[in-house]
Amino acid sequence: MELDEIFERGIDRDWQATDPADVETLRFAIIGLGWFTRGRALPALEDSEFCEATLLVSGSKEKANRIAKESDSPARGITYDEFHDGVGADEYDAVYIVTPNALHLDYVETAAELGKAILCEKPAERSSERTERLIETAENHDVPLMVAYRMHTEPAVRRAREIIQAGLIGEPQTVRGSMSQRLLDRINDDPDQWRLNEALAGGGALFDLGVYPLNTARFLLDADPVAVCGRTKRSHDAFDEVDETATFTVEFPNDVYATCFVSHNARQESELVVTGTEGQVAIRPAFFQDQARSLHVSRGAARAEIEFDIVDQMLEEFDHFAHQVRTDGEIYADGEHGLVDMYAMEAVYESEQADGWVSLE
Amino acid sequence: MELDEIFERGIDRDWQATDPADVETLRFAIIGLGWFTRGRALPALEDSEFCEATLLVSGSKEKANRIAKESDSPARGITYDEFHDGVGADEYDAVYIVTPNALHLDYVETAAELGKAILCEKPAERSSERTERLIETAENHDVPLMVAYRMHTEPAVRRAREIIQAGLIGEPQTVRGSMSQRLLDRINDDPDQWRLNEALAGGGALFDLGVYPLNTARFLLDADPVAVCGRTKRSHDAFDEVDETATFTVEFPNDVYATCFVSHNARQESELVVTGTEGQVAIRPAFFQDQARSLHVSRGAARAEIEFDIVDQMLEEFDHFAHQVRTDGEIYADGEHGLVDMYAMEAVYESEQADGWVSLE
Repeated sequence: MELDEIFERGIDRDWQATDPADVETLRFAIIGLGWFTRGRALPALEDSEFCEATLLVSGSKEKANRIAKESDSPARGITYDEFHDGVGADEYDAVYIVTPNALHLDYVETAAELGKAILCEKPAERSSERTERLIETAENHDVPLMVAYRMHTEPAVRRAREIIQAGLIGEPQTVRGSMSQRLLDRINDDPDQWRLNEALAGGGALFDLGVYPLNTARFLLDADPVAVCGRTKRSHDAFDEVDETATFTVEFPNDVYATCFVSHNARQESELVVTGTEGQVAIRPAFFQDQARSLHVSRGAARAEIEFDIVDQMLEEFDHFAHQVRTDGEIYADGEHGLVDMYAMEAVYESEQADGWVSLE
Repeated sequence: MELDEIFERGIDRDWQATDPADVETLRFAIIGLGWFTRGRALPALEDSEFCEATLLVSGSKEKANRIAKESDSPARGITYDEFHDGVGADEYDAVYIVTPNALHLDYVETAAELGKAILCEKPAERSSERTERLIETAENHDVPLMVAYRMHTEPAVRRAREIIQAGLIGEPQTVRGSMSQRLLDRINDDPDQWRLNEALAGGGALFDLGVYPLNTARFLLDADPVAVCGRTKRSHDAFDEVDETATFTVEFPNDVYATCFVSHNARQESELVVTGTEGQVAIRPAFFQDQARSLHVSRGAARAEIEFDIVDQMLEEFDHFAHQVRTDGEIYADGEHGLVDMYAMEAVYESEQADGWVSLE
């Protein structure tokens, strides 16, 4: 594949082999109704031809019903307890779990028992141990489990991957990735922000943001980490339980290193750059939603900037999941894929204690 | 200072307090006549109003005289031995040492004995131990010694520093820097490339290129390293003695980390980015000469791209040195400044052996 072919693909869904008209709509119970569900997930499902939200699950039935009514979906609200009791189980085919990390396993257990397909937010749980149990639960009930990495279906990322796989940058020699935002500016609206609570989140900036450059580097290189080394930082009181900032290096096979910086207390910014022996591809900006993405491609003496129309990343992700479930396609990223990130991120924390590299092999 | 003032400064020499017409021209003996001297240093000196080349020093007098004749300078050629014997000592006021790293000390010793001001290429020598002796030599003879960091007088870098010092990006939280080139493409012309010889160079990509993001991060943050952690890589046979690639993280005070990648075997690329709590400033491209540099400045919801006319970095550096010598100004970067980089880079090699962080305190 050459650059012009990749350019021509633009934001096409190369993974979509079946028309939505030819498959049954995948009906979702949405578990957790925070800002991300209201602002990102529900609007995407409203636009989807593959999916729809039919049940909204929250601590408060009133809140769930109010949000359902405000949305453009046929959904109705139920409580978490009702969900666990199997209420409305015939009204949905799949669950999208978008609760605090430490609660994912509970909902996976109920969803798996009910035989539902599972789309679970990343990181998969608050620890690798609970992620292992989560995977085992889905396997035991033979239900599809996908971890919700929205970068895998982001067209700019897929085109960057194609550029690398086509050999257009030669042998990848290094990756650098960054993702930062000012979480505290958001927290004014939500003082009980679970992301600051170690018991609920498991980790801070590393778990929330670090998973983006880590996982996207894996996706672009088509390789898994060998070792990690990193440090975290806490400067603001709000981060007394979890890391505010993480700086870490991930070793991949063939001595390819990805250097990463993520922060909940820095100006919003994101970038992912892969430099090879012959060229470079940079995704800039890389990770936040509702951004027009560009690929900066250089090779030899030439450079090109490929600009992409904005896509709704949640729509791409939901549709991909529904497409794969309905066509018995491969579920990617599956739980085992997510578990690799959990091991790597926990190893970054270990690395800080060890003051050096921690092997993942 | 605000952004518009910094913008207005453009490529102005904020350091130049005295007109070249008011100071005596600084006459240089140029020691080492490789491609860098012929392609970069001599053309800059031809354009300079502060400096001129009067002696060219090489292994071959014939070669030195030929290069002198080809240049637009009044220079004549002498041999290294003649230089050590004091030949032509009344024809120059300063030396510019641009030999292989391991030979710097020898020339510094002679120049210092002759009472000449010294501009010595970076890294200062092949080891910190020899750099210490180099500094001591200049001090004992009370001659000015500057290490030739051309980024300190690069206007885009100076403007980036002003932006940071004005608080426009808030508290710096992280730095990332990269510099790569395909050295082997050059080596076809020069099989005896001293950069591949450990005895002459002391280090590979780390010493040649790593010093750029390391030193420029120091300059931008106005801070010195606390600890380092890094790894090197050798994939091509040509790099059997020195590192081809280095990936390293530099800890600065207040848990600010600079992540760096440098390579002699990757597509040419360079970047330096400082992200703060409130904004970001990126120098892109950062380090190679003859490039139009841009500052990408973001703060809050706004971004600006400031483009600079190309300056001759060697001209800026020579003129700054001459200006400071002739006006008894502060010599920056002095030998002690350069020694900090030597300690930090050697610690990166130690870190690789130790498989973890190495403290510099």
